[in-house]
Formats: sequence, structure tokens, C-alpha cells
Amino acid sequence: MNGLDEKFAKLGVDYAPGQEQAFETEQKKKSHTDRKKIDFSHGDVNAFEPLPQALEEMIKGIELGADQAYTEYKGKPETRDKIAKRISTFTGRQISGKNQLIITPGSQGALFLAMGSLINQGDKVAIVAPDYFANRKIAQFFDATIVDISLDYLNHTEDAGLDLQELEEAFKAGVKLFVFSNPNNPTGVVYSEKEIKEIATLINKYNVTVIADELYARQIFDGRTYTHLCSQEIDQNQIVTVVGPSKTESLSGYRLGVAFGSPKIISRMEKLQAIVSLRAGGYSQAVLNLWFDEPEGWIEKRVQAHQDIRDELTGLFQASGMFELRPTEGGSYLFVTIPKLTTNIQDFVVSLRDERNIIVTPGTEFGPGFTKSFRLNFSQDKKDAIYAVKEIIEFTKKQFNKIHN
Amino acid sequence: MNGLDEKFAKLGVDYAPGQEQAFETEQKKKSHTDRKKIDFSHGDVNAFEPLPQALEEMIKGIELGADQAYTEYKGKPETRDKIAKRISTFTGRQISGKNQLIITPGSQGALFLAMGSLINQGDKVAIVAPDYFANRKIAQFFDATIVDISLDYLNHTEDAGLDLQELEEAFKAGVKLFVFSNPNNPTGVVYSEKEIKEIATLINKYNVTVIADELYARQIFDGRTYTHLCSQEIDQNQIVTVVGPSKTESLSGYRLGVAFGSPKIISRMEKLQAIVSLRAGGYSQAVLNLWFDEPEGWIEKRVQAHQDIRDELTGLFQASGMFELRPTEGGSYLFVTIPKLTTNIQDFVVSLRDERNIIVTPGTEFGPGFTKSFRLNFSQDKKDAIYAVKEIIEFTKKQFNKIHN
Repeated sequence: MNGLDEKFAKLGVDYAPGQEQAFETEQKKKSHTDRKKIDFSHGDVNAFEPLPQALEEMIKGIELGADQAYTEYKGKPETRDKIAKRISTFTGRQISGKNQLIITPGSQGALFLAMGSLINQGDKVAIVAPDYFANRKIAQFFDATIVDISLDYLNHTEDAGLDLQELEEAFKAGVKLFVFSNPNNPTGVVYSEKEIKEIATLINKYNVTVIADELYARQIFDGRTYTHLCSQEIDQNQIVTVVGPSKTESLSGYRLGVAFGSPKIISRMEKLQAIVSLRAGGYSQAVLNLWFDEPEGWIEKRVQAHQDIRDELTGLFQASGMFELRPTEGGSYLFVTIPKLTTNIQDFVVSLRDERNIIVTPGTEFGPGFTKSFRLNFSQDKKDAIYAVKEIIEFTKKQFNKIHN
Repeated sequence: MNGLDEKFAKLGVDYAPGQEQAFETEQKKKSHTDRKKIDFSHGDVNAFEPLPQALEEMIKGIELGADQAYTEYKGKPETRDKIAKRISTFTGRQISGKNQLIITPGSQGALFLAMGSLINQGDKVAIVAPDYFANRKIAQFFDATIVDISLDYLNHTEDAGLDLQELEEAFKAGVKLFVFSNPNNPTGVVYSEKEIKEIATLINKYNVTVIADELYARQIFDGRTYTHLCSQEIDQNQIVTVVGPSKTESLSGYRLGVAFGSPKIISRMEKLQAIVSLRAGGYSQAVLNLWFDEPEGWIEKRVQAHQDIRDELTGLFQASGMFELRPTEGGSYLFVTIPKLTTNIQDFVVSLRDERNIIVTPGTEFGPGFTKSFRLNFSQDKKDAIYAVKEIIEFTKKQFNKIHN
């Protein structure tokens, strides 16, 4: 194998969320005609619809024509100004739309540009385990060395459970970049103020750069405190924050993301965007005019609806007595540990899909060690989600009994 | 400077097409109130509107909801099938939508993924001079060594003017990848059947991989023959073809591109897309249903309208006796050499913008040697284009007289 074969062999997508449909043969589809398909690999934008007026706002953009189709690579200036102000209010960090913010094709685009702008070949990059699956893959693509930082989420309640000693040791050993999501994807835990402050202290002490993925920062449950890392005392050349309207606001189909940070980093990201995809879709960008300016109560209602689903699903899993999980504190994910079975998690996930028409994402996508966990995105129709979780429990029991009886 | 500073210092975007607006200060905008802005850096989608029904088709997609928002990373299967069939007819190369085609965010996205999937650090990459500005920048980003291949376009009429001897020498010297656009961007020349056949022979003889950018292949003037490299006898693992509806069809604002090639290469590109941007905007993808299925005569009419503008503009430039250019054979670009002035091309372009409110792209974006050329995209309102070219001629005369009288 040459270097590229090897590199791309590692970059697997077969188990990545959303890719399951590629394996749905006609035969399988047929055998499922009696079962409703519930796809927990991503949120259901039919159950939780996009921000009101999103389409209308895009049509206004299309009517503007060339001015909207061909924006600067980092996005339309007026839109950047507008959302920079609102994001400044949201995070407490004053940023300028002029040179501290970039609009990208999805927050995935922002993450790729940020990592591509900050990783030198061979650099050590600290990544939380578990965390968003692409972090690891992007670091590998740029030939970085990954240093895992444990998140002992099952045994904490006040903190997310990040091993700060491990983090300091990694920084001491020369880590250049730290990437983490808050709320954490896939576990849904929120970092405490204490943890965020300690991360900031370590960033400063060891001169490390950090990418904070705050994609779900608007969807925090139970009135919990959320602390933005960017609001701490950190040199702005050492932090990039990624946000976007794909999740809580259900705008994923418009492919919009946003990153903010120092002019130096944003300029690099824009240069990279120029060769990666030129710009986020011009017409789509218009939709951002609505963002952080939703109708009164809209966000609160949406967050409450997700909290209710979380309560139902965690209740079901816990009552079964078979699974380990920590109730989601922010975002739409549950990360569930299955009881000891003979099958590995990939086989479990494939069987669940083939036999019950239910799609979840294997834990191994979020870190190689998560061989007994799966993630589900519960931004779904509530009844469907309850039905499907009951199915998962029943299915697991059957698998368990097959082995143990 | 560390390695990244150096790398990003080379990745300039200040003179890239579309970026000029970033330099438009309020003061400059004011001083221009009496002059209409003519932006030749890209086509004007107000003058040549997007494919009819594009918006309606996207709205249908948005109404489908989740099924359209979350496609496979390489694009929605039904859409891939549909356009694969039509592209097979267009190019004469049979491709399957299943695993030989990927939908990307713009053809820029396709180019980045293709190069990222094929370049190993240190590889030699042959790039035509002049050619599309991003080719060079992407190769640099992936730490390739660029080998220039001359295109003597001004001194040929039957052929594009590629130096095939130089190409063979480069291949002999170990070039792994050859990237070229046909029709060529920025000169608008079309490779002859003879040239394409010779390129194919060299590709086979030296086992080189090629990326053919055919973005403008539907806009060929004067009934000229167009030969698709992919229709030649070449191992399909050695060729990726990039196409897209951003140009002739004016769909740039939807950010859609397409690449096709062997299952091996497309699989790599999909893996890379998974970490770069996940997928082309789901809702936008719906617009591709219309592509290569336009109302009867629509494409022919559009091509004819562009040919008419080409005739007018080349006539004006030639009549002035001050410029060198070859009339465009395909696509919407004219590449114009200015007479010897004391200013460099960047200063010329900036002055033209500041004094006349006319935007063109400096030749140095297309190869470091093109210090006396600029590119203009004449997909514009015809009257506006004629006015602006007259202004450019008058402006150049003034500059010239300042120096020589």
C-alpha cells in the first residue's frame, strides 16, 4: 500500500452517521415494509422543523441575485456583521464581523478549516475520548499524532468528567492543539465552569491552541449553567469557536456553519476555504439573517420539547436495568452502554438495523475504546422515539438471553 | 515563521476573483456613485439567470424534509443515478451513479477532494500555465512540487497550444498527477482532438493520473469539436473528471459540483468529503434533477448569446490595436495581454477598480508568469460589457500615453 492507500483506509465512513442508507439493499427495504424506520443517526427535521421563515429568507436572497450568489469567501459582510453582534451577546466575547468570523458550509466545514489552519504534520493533537467522530479523522488526515484525553462521564454529575491531569500531562508533553465539543458529542454532558476555567488556565500556561465546538450550546437542559471557553481570559490567537444552526435550529439541509477567532486564524481559514469550497452556498447564507433572532420563546419551547424526550428515553433505558447512561445535559444525544454481549458493537448496530429498522451510531466512531456503546440522536418525533427505544431494549434483552440462558 | 505561517503566506486570496469587495472601503464606494460597477471577476447571474425552475425544484426538496437534508455523503442516490445517465450520454463514458460519481459543494469542492485524494506529500504535479488559479494553490497546500506545462495559446489556432514535449518530459521525470481545464480557464481555448489523444497516450505510457476540469464543456462556440478525455482509452483509476452547473447554467449560488471516476477514487473523495463538509447542501442537490434536462433549445440559446458577446468584446479589443488575445473557443473568459506599462498587473487591476469601478482578475492568479494579462468573465449584460471594455481600452490608452508621451 502506498501512503495514500493507507491514509484513506483509516478514513472509514461505513459506520458514520447518515451513511447507513448506502447499505440498505432493495431486499432489506422489502423485509422492513412492516416496520417504521427510525433513524437515530441524526435529528429528524420533519419532527423538529427548520426555523420559521428560513425558506422565505433564502428566496429573498435568491431574488437579490449576483450579490447573494457571489459573496466574499468568508461570507456576506452584512450577514457577518449581523451575526457577529448576536454571537457576541450570546457568548460574552466581543467579536467583529469584519475579520473575526467566517461562514462555512456546515459546522463540519468550520472544523475542517480550523484544524487545517492549525495542524502541522506530526503535531500532537489532544482529543477527548469520546468526542465528535470527525475530530479524530481530520487530525489523521493532516498527519497529526492523536493524544486521547479521558472523559469519565459515567462517574461524574457536577463536572463533565474530563481528566484534567491527563490534559496537563499531554500539554506538558508538547500538544499543540486541543479539540473538544461542549456539550460533548456523543455523551451530552456539559463542562462545568470549574472545568472550563481549568482548561483556560492550562491553555495559557502551556501556550496550546484550542478549538471549542459549541454546536449545541443553545440547547442546555434543566437550567444548567453553560460557560463559554471564549469568554475566559485567553489570547484570541489561541482559540477558535465553532457554532452553527444545524442542530437546535434544524437548518442542516442549508449547510451553514460559523467559526470565530482572531483575525490571524480567520484569515487562514478563509484562504483554505478559497480552495476547499470557495464559500458557503450564497443563497443559503441569507438564512443566517434569522439566526439568534428567533420569534420570542421559540428556542425555549424547542429546548423544553427535547428535554421532555430525554426524560422519557432515559427513564425507559434506566427502568430496564440493562444499560449504563448519563442523562443528557445539553444537545440531542444519548450515549448508551449495552450489557456484555458476545457481539461487537458494529454487529449489534447492523443487526438492530436489519432486524428492527432502527439506526444508531456505534460508539467506536467516537473513540476506538467505545466498543460497547452506541449514540442516538433523540431529536425525533416523541412517540416514534419511545417506540424505538422500547424496541432497542427488547432487542437487547433477546440478544442477552440468547447468550446467558 | 513556522511551517504553517509559510504555507498560508503562499495561499493568497487578496487578488482572487470575488474577493475585491473586501477592499471596497466606504470612501471608494462613495466616489463611484457616478459609475456603474461592472464585475468581470465572475458571471452575472442577473444577466444570465439560473436554469428555469431551479428554485421550484429546491423547494420540492425542502418539502421532502429529512430525506433531502441528510443524503449520503456522496449525494442523494436517486439524483446520482439520474445525472450519471445524462453525463454518460454527454461524455460517451458510461458511469454508474452508484459508485462512480460524487456530488460536491461546487466544482471547487470536487477539485479539492480529487487533488486531496491523489496527492502524496512531495509528489510532482503537472499544471498548465495558465490554468485555473486554485489548481496551483491546492497543490501547494498538499505540499506537492508543481511542474509548469506551457500553453502557447496566442500562437495556435488549430490546437490549444499545449507543449506536449514538455508534458512528456515532466511525466518522464516522475510527475504523478496532471491537472488541466478544458476549455482552458483563463484563456478559453479548447484542446483539439489530436491534443486530447496525445495526452491520453502519455497518461497511459507513463502511468500518470489526470484530473480533467470540464466545467465549461457545455459552452463551446462556433460548432467546434469538443473531445472528452474520459472517452479515450484510459484506465479509469487514472482519471477524474470535474463538471458542474455553476457556469453555463448559472447555478453557482446553489454550490453544486460533480466529479466522476473509478469507484476507488470516488470512495476516497467521499471519505474526504465526510470530514471536509459532510455533503453538498441537501436541499441544493435537488436542483441537479433539472441538469442536462433543460427545456429544448435553452442551452443552445445561452451559448449563442455568449458567443455574440465574445464577438463584440474581441472586436473592440482587436480594433484598439493595443492588446493581445485569442478569441474564446469555449466558456466565458477572455484572457487579455496589456501593452507594456510601467505598472505591474496588480496595480493596473487595482487602478482600474478604483478609477473606473471595473473589476478584472490579474493574470498572476493563473500562473506566476502572467504579469501582463488579466482575465474577464463576459457572462454579463451585453451593453454593460461593451461599455466596460470601452472603458478598459480608454483607461489603458491613458496609462500608456502617460508613460510614452
